[in-house]
Amino acid sequence: MSSGGPGNVFNADCPSRAVMEQLSEKWSLLILHLLAEGPQRTSDLRRAIGGVSEKMLIQTLRKLERNGFVERRSYNEVPPRVDYRLTDLGRSLVPVVKAFDHWIEARIVDVIAAQRRFDGRQGP
Amino acid sequence: MSSGGPGNVFNADCPSRAVMEQLSEKWSLLILHLLAEGPQRTSDLRRAIGGVSEKMLIQTLRKLERNGFVERRSYNEVPPRVDYRLTDLGRSLVPVVKAFDHWIEARIVDVIAAQRRFDGRQGP
Repeated sequence: MSSGGPGNVFNADCPSRAVMEQLSEKWSLLILHLLAEGPQRTSDLRRAIGGVSEKMLIQTLRKLERNGFVERRSYNEVPPRVDYRLTDLGRSLVPVVKAFDHWIEARIVDVIAAQRRFDGRQGP
Repeated sequence: MSSGGPGNVFNADCPSRAVMEQLSEKWSLLILHLLAEGPQRTSDLRRAIGGVSEKMLIQTLRKLERNGFVERRSYNEVPPRVDYRLTDLGRSLVPVVKAFDHWIEARIVDVIAAQRRFDGRQGP
């Protein structure tokens, strides 16, 4: 658990905890997963992620940019064009993010079965 | 991205999205990481995780139990004793959770450098 290492997510005052919390926010992992396919415009991301609002998407992208995971590029065009892509740091996180998504997608059937058992035990 | 598979985290109506959101909640990953070491009592978890309240810890454990990741055992002792342990389903998620924590702990230095650059660009 690397309490003597460069970061310790169990320590509330360690910056790594704040980063874990940002990555844990609702849309961060989905956005990183999509950007792994290549640069995307905000409208692409919004279409691909069911249920995200424009405001939440922009806020999340800004935090991901601040943390060094994504790069925002604006092009001198009419109308103006902006896209987002992974940085090298963001790209190094992709295998971890994909493993997480794939685990969930593969085991969701078992999770739903567990939920039914739990809810059955709690009674009406 | 397995849109035709058993789960699709990009679909707001898919149960896998709800599970991703639960795992993304503030304390879930830290708890799973700690339970990977063996059964723990609530007081052990509370001591190990900086900043968590008793209420949040209990709420999170209950959701993890409902989703089939942890098992709660109560022992017929005086005073009553309760502990939590990973189920087989929860145990299968451990490598993914550890990879996530380790990435953050290893790269936090790069994230902090990115934050400083970003904040410097935004001006006072």
